Amino acid sequence: MEIKKTLDLIDKKKPLIHHITNWVTIYDCANITRAVGALPIMAHAPEEVAEMTGISSALVLNIGTLTTELIKSMKIAGKKANKSGAAIVLDAVGAGATKLRTEKCKELLAALDINIIKGNAGEIATLAGIEAEVKGVESVSVSGDIRVIAADFARERGAVIVVSGKQDIVTDGRTTYFIDNGHEMMGQVVGTGCMLASVIGSFAAVNKDYNLAAAQAVTYYDIAGELAAEKSDGPGTFREQFFDQIYLNRHTDFTERQKVVVYEN
Amino acid sequence: MEIKKTLDLIDKKKPLIHHITNWVTIYDCANITRAVGALPIMAHAPEEVAEMTGISSALVLNIGTLTTELIKSMKIAGKKANKSGAAIVLDAVGAGATKLRTEKCKELLAALDINIIKGNAGEIATLAGIEAEVKGVESVSVSGDIRVIAADFARERGAVIVVSGKQDIVTDGRTTYFIDNGHEMMGQVVGTGCMLASVIGSFAAVNKDYNLAAAQAVTYYDIAGELAAEKSDGPGTFREQFFDQIYLNRHTDFTERQKVVVYEN
Amino acid sequence: MEIKKTLDLIDKKKPLIHHITNWVTIYDCANITRAVGALPIMAHAPEEVAEMTGISSALVLNIGTLTTELIKSMKIAGKKANKSGAAIVLDAVGAGATKLRTEKCKELLAALDINIIKGNAGEIATLAGIEAEVKGVESVSVSGDIRVIAADFARERGAVIVVSGKQDIVTDGRTTYFIDNGHEMMGQVVGTGCMLASVIGSFAAVNKDYNLAAAQAVTYYDIAGELAAEKSDGPGTFREQFFDQIYLNRHTDFTERQKVVVYEN
Repeated sequence: MEIKKTLDLIDKKKPLIHHITNWVTIYDCANITRAVGALPIMAHAPEEVAEMTGISSALVLNIGTLTTELIKSMKIAGKKANKSGAAIVLDAVGAGATKLRTEKCKELLAALDINIIKGNAGEIATLAGIEAEVKGVESVSVSGDIRVIAADFARERGAVIVVSGKQDIVTDGRTTYFIDNGHEMMGQVVGTGCMLASVIGSFAAVNKDYNLAAAQAVTYYDIAGELAAEKSDGPGTFREQFFDQIYLNRHTDFTERQKVVVYEN
Repeated sequence: MEIKKTLDLIDKKKPLIHHITNWVTIYDCANITRAVGALPIMAHAPEEVAEMTGISSALVLNIGTLTTELIKSMKIAGKKANKSGAAIVLDAVGAGATKLRTEKCKELLAALDINIIKGNAGEIATLAGIEAEVKGVESVSVSGDIRVIAADFARERGAVIVVSGKQDIVTDGRTTYFIDNGHEMMGQVVGTGCMLASVIGSFAAVNKDYNLAAAQAVTYYDIAGELAAEKSDGPGTFREQFFDQIYLNRHTDFTERQKVVVYEN
Repeated sequence: MEIKKTLDLIDKKKPLIHHITNWVTIYDCANITRAVGALPIMAHAPEEVAEMTGISSALVLNIGTLTTELIKSMKIAGKKANKSGAAIVLDAVGAGATKLRTEKCKELLAALDINIIKGNAGEIATLAGIEAEVKGVESVSVSGDIRVIAADFARERGAVIVVSGKQDIVTDGRTTYFIDNGHEMMGQVVGTGCMLASVIGSFAAVNKDYNLAAAQAVTYYDIAGELAAEKSDGPGTFREQFFDQIYLNRHTDFTERQKVVVYEN
């Protein structure tokens, strides 16, 4: 994949990425968006979310510390995005762990045309209506093959599905990317899942081929993780190296490092 | 103390640690929980906190940026924890600094069976009904000997009391641990107090001898601080080294570094 | 400027700096306040903000993730500060980007005697009633010369105006400081704007010559940024080095590094 082309577009257009997100990783999501070359804005007041989305090129919704009020703001912003054409990314953090999370995700999916839905295997399976166990924000088990579940769900929704895991999957139900890049240290640091949604949003803001944009974003992100792991000893040093790598390689294709298999349905 | 045994249990069981905490150090609390080998979940919506506590092994309550709504969620979650047997840790951040903080802590103590209560000398004295001065989140002065106050309060409450300071105190009113590990740089970085409660929660999640679990957690934490200080120049580099040290020593007893005196009442 | 004198006062008095701020950079604001030698407290519950401000030496208001509830708490705290004499710093994050932000800033300016108003060129121009474009939290364009706009606005308000940018401007409408220190990496990291308000608040807490205090704070901050950039490769490593530099140089005047021009109106 030619990742550099999309990175260059981000750098040139500096798209505004509106986040309505959680209070745990909100700083990291903003900072990674800036590091990849886009401009983050975090705003959740119901009075201003539509206006903020209106000047943004992508909207990232993350239910990590959801409340009913926050979901209302997400719907207002999402409806604006559906009108303006801004890409919507939903990070379904903890769907399946509690009824509230599952229900509110389904409400968002019913109310909005969401372009990219991201989660781990358990979260995606839950949203697809397949039995799964999610412990907090960790996927424990899924009844069935997540590759099939994701592709089916993508076709059903007309959306791109991103399943994060040891092998990452990006699919629109026709073209599926299996991405074997990444490093286990990424799972030892809180926020790597949330930040990925911000990077996907940044790519989707300038590349309307959302399936390709998401695959590029995941691959770039995973390789930055590999490079950061080489330069760090534990989660503290990894985290800072990771921001550096996302920033420093913004003009790199990583052609030789990509471990991506494309499967056409 | 055999710290490694408890660390190994955390690593094996990967207990879920539910936090209802403040918006300042929420990321750090989540990340330190992950670094020590447990799984963090931060969730505060009243509709889901009982369910989230129900699948968790410990509940960490922190009033650092309390609101009346947040206290309500803490009570709901705490009642669930008291039923399910999950350990409750209360971090009484700023008790004594404002009436709201003191009152809300007392409400939580009245409503819940809290297993471990953590604070600095001024905060603990305030909750024990002893005159003290707290400036923001810093302890200024206490009327009396905090070692006696803590032990009395522990017996009165049937709880473990953790007093953080230059010398840390962990007591159930019968067995008291005086811990002289740690490094002054820990006081120069925001969040080291809050993160300690998360680590105590992680230890208590797998070791039902809460007094010993808390003493182990504090000792492990303090020694990680010493090691991080050796590798850093200021609060920025210290912080990342600290996360690394918590992560890297998860299979270490630190027998030779422990500066712990045990006093039997 | 003799920056060291004010830094020494901060170190000696350890003033409490009360923040009502945003959820993105709240940790960084607290941590930078601690790093510069003051004591941060973040508290936003309407029931306690007046009491917390009452024991504080400065109040930092930041509308980065404003809600109508948060603005109410800011007014309560601000009125207390105006009575107690605590310095108020307003960081007008995103004023001009949405109606809500512009209106709520104007409400705060109408209700409170704000001592120091900080923003980028677009935010300050918006508050001064001059046409400007703000994209998220980035200044895009301003109709007119921001140096004139800032000085006029300072005189009109009887306040100190701080305009952050490639060249920073600090003015009370009579004496204007043009500060050419700083490093472009500061713009690549989220939170450097917000943290500056915390440092200004810390300086203003011990130096009632607010124009000078703000100029000292900006200069110190910018030079720390230069030093941090020398020791880092990207935004991740920069961030931690920046905290270190703010901490390590607390007894330094940086006389030879200052690039400050003072202009008397």
